[in-house]
Amino acid sequence: MTTTLHWPALITLATLALLFACIWAVGRARGRYRVPAPATSGPPEFDRIFRVQMNTLEGTVLFLPALWLAALYFNPRIAAAIGAVWLLARAWYAVAYARNPKSRGAPFVIAFAAWGTLMLLAAWGVLSAPLW
Amino acid sequence: MTTTLHWPALITLATLALLFACIWAVGRARGRYRVPAPATSGPPEFDRIFRVQMNTLEGTVLFLPALWLAALYFNPRIAAAIGAVWLLARAWYAVAYARNPKSRGAPFVIAFAAWGTLMLLAAWGVLSAPLW
Amino acid sequence: MTTTLHWPALITLATLALLFACIWAVGRARGRYRVPAPATSGPPEFDRIFRVQMNTLEGTVLFLPALWLAALYFNPRIAAAIGAVWLLARAWYAVAYARNPKSRGAPFVIAFAAWGTLMLLAAWGVLSAPLW
Repeated sequence: MTTTLHWPALITLATLALLFACIWAVGRARGRYRVPAPATSGPPEFDRIFRVQMNTLEGTVLFLPALWLAALYFNPRIAAAIGAVWLLARAWYAVAYARNPKSRGAPFVIAFAAWGTLMLLAAWGVLSAPLW
Repeated sequence: MTTTLHWPALITLATLALLFACIWAVGRARGRYRVPAPATSGPPEFDRIFRVQMNTLEGTVLFLPALWLAALYFNPRIAAAIGAVWLLARAWYAVAYARNPKSRGAPFVIAFAAWGTLMLLAAWGVLSAPLW
Repeated sequence: MTTTLHWPALITLATLALLFACIWAVGRARGRYRVPAPATSGPPEFDRIFRVQMNTLEGTVLFLPALWLAALYFNPRIAAAIGAVWLLARAWYAVAYARNPKSRGAPFVIAFAAWGTLMLLAAWGVLSAPLW
């Protein structure tokens, strides 16, 4: 792998760590709020922690391919820098949502803007090169 | 990246756009059917839109690795062409399911056949090369 | 692709097959336990099979990027061997959870240890190379 791809690789590992932390939080909340598996609903505190996990899972599936296509077709370091913004916003989103779903707006918008930028850079990179 | 990998890259970007559209539809349905987060069930219309999101998420996780392995180990353009069939079938599936779950059979079968074909081509490509 | 990457490619295909089997099991359980879509809860047997699907989906999203980063930045064959341990543990986990959620502890711990090892090897590989 070329050196500059180390940066999206690091962002990827940190994203997996964030997703794991969200999954781990559900496991702990199952004990604290007495919601034994396979139930997925309980008191509102549990429900929010469970939704954070699902939203982070969805976000990760949208994010990682966009990050790598932007890294490979546009620029690895720029993609990783935007990816870091996404990652910090999603960590903020997870904490904010677990406390109060209404406060999740700001980090959601930041993460969405970062993801949209990665998508545009990737699309620009792919489409600006000869396709045939 | 070699030129021919642009095609699976384009299919990947379009798949992410489809998944995002399904997530966006849930957000809009939360407002229309008054299902505030973190709830995930409400009237049947909302429940169908929510299931489409989850099924598209599952489908994306199955699809993207199969698309890229078929592109890298068999042929990028053939993989992308089959991927385009999968993508169109999944978009049809999303619309059909949201209207009437019973009508999701045909697009599901087409998408499944496309995914199965990618899996077989990828497996053939990997296994037909020397493994040691 | 270099020859040694065939091993993580094979593990990836087998992981997709496991995830598909879990999704397929939900479809069959919808018929057997009379839980028509878009409902996602029913008798406990159905709920367990549904949770296995979701947990396998989460596990796959955590696993595949870690597998490939460990393969590319550390060693493809060692990554694939650890990935095989993860895969077997997750298959065991799926069967155990569907029968009795309390019996899922041992395969969960094994799969978690395998995933954590891949994360550490990938992080070591990325961080031990010059980043600038």
